[in-house]
Amino acid sequence: MAKETEELKTLGITVKKSDDMPEWYGQVCQKAELAEPSVIKGCMIIRPNGMQIWENIQAFFDARIKTYGVKNAYFPTLIPESFFKREEAHAEGFKAEVAWIEKKDEGGERLALRPTSETIMYDSYSRWIRSWRDLPLRINQWCNVFRWEVSDTKVFLRTREFLWQEGHCVYETEEECEKETKEYLQEYVRVAEELLAFPVLTGKKSEHEKFAGAKTTYTIEALMPDGKALQMGTSHNLGQHFAKAFGIEYVGSDKEKHLPWQNSWGISTRMIGAVVMVHGDDKGFVLPPRVAQNKVVIVPILFDDTKDKVVAKCKELMHELAEFNPILDDRIEYNPGFKFNHWELRGIPFRLELGPKDLEKDSVVFVRRDTGKKEFIKTSEIKKKIHHSIDEMHGDMFSKAKKAMETNIVSVKEFKEFEEAVKDRKLIKAAHCGNFDCEEQIKQKTTATCRCIIEKEVSKEDACFNCGEKAKYFAYFAKNY
Amino acid sequence: MAKETEELKTLGITVKKSDDMPEWYGQVCQKAELAEPSVIKGCMIIRPNGMQIWENIQAFFDARIKTYGVKNAYFPTLIPESFFKREEAHAEGFKAEVAWIEKKDEGGERLALRPTSETIMYDSYSRWIRSWRDLPLRINQWCNVFRWEVSDTKVFLRTREFLWQEGHCVYETEEECEKETKEYLQEYVRVAEELLAFPVLTGKKSEHEKFAGAKTTYTIEALMPDGKALQMGTSHNLGQHFAKAFGIEYVGSDKEKHLPWQNSWGISTRMIGAVVMVHGDDKGFVLPPRVAQNKVVIVPILFDDTKDKVVAKCKELMHELAEFNPILDDRIEYNPGFKFNHWELRGIPFRLELGPKDLEKDSVVFVRRDTGKKEFIKTSEIKKKIHHSIDEMHGDMFSKAKKAMETNIVSVKEFKEFEEAVKDRKLIKAAHCGNFDCEEQIKQKTTATCRCIIEKEVSKEDACFNCGEKAKYFAYFAKNY
Repeated sequence: MAKETEELKTLGITVKKSDDMPEWYGQVCQKAELAEPSVIKGCMIIRPNGMQIWENIQAFFDARIKTYGVKNAYFPTLIPESFFKREEAHAEGFKAEVAWIEKKDEGGERLALRPTSETIMYDSYSRWIRSWRDLPLRINQWCNVFRWEVSDTKVFLRTREFLWQEGHCVYETEEECEKETKEYLQEYVRVAEELLAFPVLTGKKSEHEKFAGAKTTYTIEALMPDGKALQMGTSHNLGQHFAKAFGIEYVGSDKEKHLPWQNSWGISTRMIGAVVMVHGDDKGFVLPPRVAQNKVVIVPILFDDTKDKVVAKCKELMHELAEFNPILDDRIEYNPGFKFNHWELRGIPFRLELGPKDLEKDSVVFVRRDTGKKEFIKTSEIKKKIHHSIDEMHGDMFSKAKKAMETNIVSVKEFKEFEEAVKDRKLIKAAHCGNFDCEEQIKQKTTATCRCIIEKEVSKEDACFNCGEKAKYFAYFAKNY
Repeated sequence: MAKETEELKTLGITVKKSDDMPEWYGQVCQKAELAEPSVIKGCMIIRPNGMQIWENIQAFFDARIKTYGVKNAYFPTLIPESFFKREEAHAEGFKAEVAWIEKKDEGGERLALRPTSETIMYDSYSRWIRSWRDLPLRINQWCNVFRWEVSDTKVFLRTREFLWQEGHCVYETEEECEKETKEYLQEYVRVAEELLAFPVLTGKKSEHEKFAGAKTTYTIEALMPDGKALQMGTSHNLGQHFAKAFGIEYVGSDKEKHLPWQNSWGISTRMIGAVVMVHGDDKGFVLPPRVAQNKVVIVPILFDDTKDKVVAKCKELMHELAEFNPILDDRIEYNPGFKFNHWELRGIPFRLELGPKDLEKDSVVFVRRDTGKKEFIKTSEIKKKIHHSIDEMHGDMFSKAKKAMETNIVSVKEFKEFEEAVKDRKLIKAAHCGNFDCEEQIKQKTTATCRCIIEKEVSKEDACFNCGEKAKYFAYFAKNY
């Protein structure tokens, strides 16, 4: 036992989440085998436990966007330099982050690794779209993208390569475009709330923070337990900026040529990082049950004389609970305590323990990962119990995360209060003038950035907390990842 | 009508498959909206109609490998130069095809775009694998890879970037490794035969043709209608080559250190190209029904007075046949003939036509894409008819492709016969000495390459058709893509 206890210490998380969150985060990602940094700075290896989460996000979201008529495609990773240059704001915004390859195109042109695919896709769109019959055009791709980050990289949260989806739609009218831009954002809210069990703020980005080349950017922002905001997904109304730059035109039912309206929208593997930070605890990872690939682990309590019977019963349970993809941990070289820690670290939502006494009583011990609460459940009831607990645990995790977010929001009117609140790692709601330079000044002075703006609540009396000018909107500010 | 006929001519395939297969292939890919060449030479855009096929191959194969315990992961695209150099034969084999990025790693090292991921994955494996308890390790990734092809590029068949899966497993014993290497190849056979409806040759690669770094390469080869062979998938027994190069070791149950055994195996979007070439006809693409996302298109025959009733019935059918993802083409701006051509070009397996007379008789016209055969089917029977026809059409397409392959195989004993057979675009079976230089000579003289070898049939009397030395095995030779 002494040796195993020793082994547990290094295998388990050695720091409290509240004491040192960056260290805790790195340990959970590594020890729960979600992801690890590559030898190449800023790149990550997504291990099977992390990849399963992404695949379940994919399945959930892909089914949703198909109901809008979105179809998947795949465009080349390599983008010619001249494409980037066509939309000025876009080119300027991505300039610093683009990685180029050594080989040139046949014409001698430089080729970039895509940081996002607007330019290469819209060049094709300009050939594919001829008439109003070709619209709306709704295309999505699941792929890898590259952004040569220079600041601190961290698995899932900020890496030079990550996985994402990017949707790119084209519409006849501005109204349709704006409507769907917001609807795809709402689908991101569903991913966060209904699948990953945490709440998000939704709103517009300020002029300062919007996507390079967009008319309007909508965002979902999650609050991490260290008070930093994490941008989770964005949906951009691109207006006609790219249509102009790439010569996308269609002949309307009026036989006249028109410029169409476009949007683009994306979520990435960054979402997995949010799941880790929001839900994890000092024992390790906690998987929201709906996104968990393996929802249940079964740990038999083994004694020499009853071993065969107990394992046989566990195998019966495996069969009965197949829809939850249960794991049977019948390894003989580890004791139950070791196994409990092993699966708690990896965040499996439900544990069933079954020993000879349980067998006699025809029951199992049922343990929820987030609360650690133990219950004795009749074997005949266990399937129903798990079904019920999936929604219950999801609801409890969501409520807890929601409360954490709400209690961390403060409203301020003056810069002094704002400064204090930034130090206290709060999510700060304040009236703002909407001025680009004023916002830049706030960022320089406090390192807090504008996460999103809410236009409807502002009144004539409200003044910018920083410069005192007439407020244009209310906005949320926070430090961010 | 005159205008529509004109439009049809350019929309449809303007060359016969038997007259000019390369031109026909390009037109089918482009006009059926499967894929098109990118502005960047050698890259391709996979359009939704092509992507659906790849997604269905993914779903089919991913479910199969999960039964072996394979788990998906994602490794970085960028590979440090030093990793490539570790396994000598591997480094030499891929040298010419690797694209590098301009930016260097922090240590100043060059970074390559992965042409395959053995090296970056096995570096991680060397840290992950400690004891026999960690084995077998079975990991797969679905990703993009880059090979800077200089010869003629062609969408799906030969491109500088393509999508694939690469499985990478590690085992304690040589037997296990060899057994599973062959089993994954057998799974590729299933993809070709059970999903894509064409037969493949299976066998070992010769020393001349095997994967750079492998001990043994197994391959599946399909025969294209122009007599060229297409390598569809390979499964490599890597022996202990990479384990040695990357220092992968495990402590066995005997407490001793051992080198494990490894395999790697992959199929790619190239498979879609084979589907086009094998099954397509002068009208365009023919989708094997099992891999078709939309198995049915419903075309209402519209007249002013009965239009509403007919469309209402079609919508009922849409609902009833939902499991086949039917398309309803109720566009009023095109006539039925135009629509028939439109969907035949795109290869939709089954067409239902429904007009006022059919409505009266409570039946529909059912048309199979591959045969063009028309049948009147009672509406109540249509679901059963489609279910039955999926298997029937699959079987017929497979048989036709099998017959085409078998009738194109010839056996030869002498070089003169061989030369004639190459000119006749045959798949040639011949005894060969197994000598690397002899094989290279055949390639130089005839452009035919060794596609795979069959060891069991050779006898003492058999002599190499080229050099006359004692035969080591029989082999299939052909020109290839």
